[in-house]
Amino acid sequence: MASEKPLVIVTCTAPVNIAVIKYWGKRDEELILPLNSSLSVTLHQDQLKTTTTAAISRDFAEDRVWLNGVEVDVGQPRLQSCLREIRRLAWQQRRTDEGDAPPPHLSYKVHIASQNNFPTAAGLASSAAGYACLAYTLARVYRVEGELSEVARRGSGSACRSLYGGFVQWHMGEQADGKDSIAQQVAPELHWPELWILVLVVSAERKLTGSTAGMQTSVETSTLLQFRATSVVPGRMAEMIRCVRERDFSGFGQLTMKDSNQFHATCLDTFPPISYLNDTSKLIMYLVHRFNAHHGQTKVAYTFDAGPNAVIFTLDDAVAEFMAAVKHCFPPESNGDRFLKGLPVMPVPLSDELKAALALDPSPGSIKYIIATKVGPGPQILDDPHLHLLGSDGLPKPAA
Amino acid sequence: MASEKPLVIVTCTAPVNIAVIKYWGKRDEELILPLNSSLSVTLHQDQLKTTTTAAISRDFAEDRVWLNGVEVDVGQPRLQSCLREIRRLAWQQRRTDEGDAPPPHLSYKVHIASQNNFPTAAGLASSAAGYACLAYTLARVYRVEGELSEVARRGSGSACRSLYGGFVQWHMGEQADGKDSIAQQVAPELHWPELWILVLVVSAERKLTGSTAGMQTSVETSTLLQFRATSVVPGRMAEMIRCVRERDFSGFGQLTMKDSNQFHATCLDTFPPISYLNDTSKLIMYLVHRFNAHHGQTKVAYTFDAGPNAVIFTLDDAVAEFMAAVKHCFPPESNGDRFLKGLPVMPVPLSDELKAALALDPSPGSIKYIIATKVGPGPQILDDPHLHLLGSDGLPKPAA
Repeated sequence: MASEKPLVIVTCTAPVNIAVIKYWGKRDEELILPLNSSLSVTLHQDQLKTTTTAAISRDFAEDRVWLNGVEVDVGQPRLQSCLREIRRLAWQQRRTDEGDAPPPHLSYKVHIASQNNFPTAAGLASSAAGYACLAYTLARVYRVEGELSEVARRGSGSACRSLYGGFVQWHMGEQADGKDSIAQQVAPELHWPELWILVLVVSAERKLTGSTAGMQTSVETSTLLQFRATSVVPGRMAEMIRCVRERDFSGFGQLTMKDSNQFHATCLDTFPPISYLNDTSKLIMYLVHRFNAHHGQTKVAYTFDAGPNAVIFTLDDAVAEFMAAVKHCFPPESNGDRFLKGLPVMPVPLSDELKAALALDPSPGSIKYIIATKVGPGPQILDDPHLHLLGSDGLPKPAA
Repeated sequence: MASEKPLVIVTCTAPVNIAVIKYWGKRDEELILPLNSSLSVTLHQDQLKTTTTAAISRDFAEDRVWLNGVEVDVGQPRLQSCLREIRRLAWQQRRTDEGDAPPPHLSYKVHIASQNNFPTAAGLASSAAGYACLAYTLARVYRVEGELSEVARRGSGSACRSLYGGFVQWHMGEQADGKDSIAQQVAPELHWPELWILVLVVSAERKLTGSTAGMQTSVETSTLLQFRATSVVPGRMAEMIRCVRERDFSGFGQLTMKDSNQFHATCLDTFPPISYLNDTSKLIMYLVHRFNAHHGQTKVAYTFDAGPNAVIFTLDDAVAEFMAAVKHCFPPESNGDRFLKGLPVMPVPLSDELKAALALDPSPGSIKYIIATKVGPGPQILDDPHLHLLGSDGLPKPAA
């Protein structure tokens, strides 16, 4: 038997992804299998990422988990499902390699610490980055190789798309056991360097329907959702892959907007209805359409997940002008915070023609701030031991 | 030849109707034939009506039209289409009765004056009442008998449903010439006397996409609309007719809400998207669902047309309590105007339990006022000559 170090510890990071062909609705609640395939763009981890440290030791008495420094209940079903799945895979792979006796580390308890470099209040889908990071990190401590979609998916369906950088599709799959419901890269991180992603964080007052409960109600009550999944999405997946591969921004942007709108339409068709877009979200949509109409082409596109925040796609040649338009329509309130976070965007003046074409009265404070980013890579292993979130005692390090 | 009076003058009134199975999208733009059948409730004219006077005379030099006291262009296509259609029917009917020579009054020019007893700013579908009243009044001055759906429809599709009181279905029809696309009463005015209708007039800032242009864009771009029209609405029409006939409020209310939501879902699925519901509309929807959840049954239902105003259905046993809930969540701003117009509703206190269950912070001023009404009759002829909107000279009387 190989000698065991007292503590095996690994730290990884994983990205947020934003779907441009939306996932909404499961065909299997237990295995988290989707009603339709989906496609996403991986956001750069310089701006948005989850960091997770996992440690195993024969000395640990139980599995424990800390999120953003606070210990959470390790018994929650999705966490348990991920842990069970990774240990099953580890056991399966070792059995194949080394015979029937599983190595002792598979029975070790695990300590996990995870944190985001962005506020949860931003309303960004942190669970996708979180569960992708968990799956990726656990795979390294338990020495699991190969496809991790199934592990990540158990935590949160869209987490499997955060296992890759660039542009990623999640095949819905056809098998009942979900073995073919996996994520796959469509194009790598550096495929479309001109592409910008702006996260417009919208001020919201009301609490929202969670996406897990929301999509379940949609599957049960929306007569439009099944039609979308069966008859609309397959064609849109093929078209979106073509747009990405050919870097056809006009096609990419229009289809992204249409699919976001159709997802929110099926939410509204749910009973009781679900509404994630607020009046500010709709003003942003209106602004984008007016901006494009002024230019006579699709220069900017929006997409919205299960919340009012907009994610904007645009290219190098339009990002500065669009930012000026956003600042004009949604002037920042002087809250001492920086309005533009992330990558710098050179300020440019807004032309009078565009200002007139937008025809929008300013709504001060409706957008809290903007995060500017680009397409980014998939999960990373951090080699520097100083970056571990857990100390050599297996407990969270005091916050720096 | 019969002797002609110098002036033939008739005054009629017609009601507003609100669809509970929505009409959205035409299969023929020219003939105004709908993609699907629809069903509406006729609102009582004591609260909401259009009054129209039409006069014909050999002395009139041209067709002229006044709306709410202001002369409008008689050349607008839909007005012309109604006039042409009523004269065609008149000629056709006289020819059958009296041989090939049309009586001279068919060549007389017409003067028309029309006014609403409710502000246009209320955002209520005044065109349905207006064109129903026009068709009904013109039929009397030109002595046309029988089915007027086709005349009213030429002005505004949903106008054909305002030709009847009570509960009315508009059969989509199948013939290419639209002869079978007609309105028909499902249940009369007094069929369901416990039913209340509350129009919640919402403060809105933005101008909206007109319904004619909106539905055309939906037909061209929404992938969900055709599916709705073909696969969802036929079943819903049958179910709604059953609910109305059996006075099944729970079924009626739920289906009314679902169909309103699905209509707005297809608007959102349109590209560029159309959005008629604002944040206040959504708060009203939320309030209704919470109110029903508190009672464990569907006591109240909403429906929204192409604007943010809510139309609420409820019964005698819930109207006062729901009104108290609305006043709690949307306290009137002291603007000197009456908040509750129309039928009186006895004020009752709101229970602490319900107040807690609603869990909504008050939004003062978000609802401008409420019009309380009931189901009403179809168009009426006014016999009192004092009520004519045109004087014996064929010109609008000075406003009283």
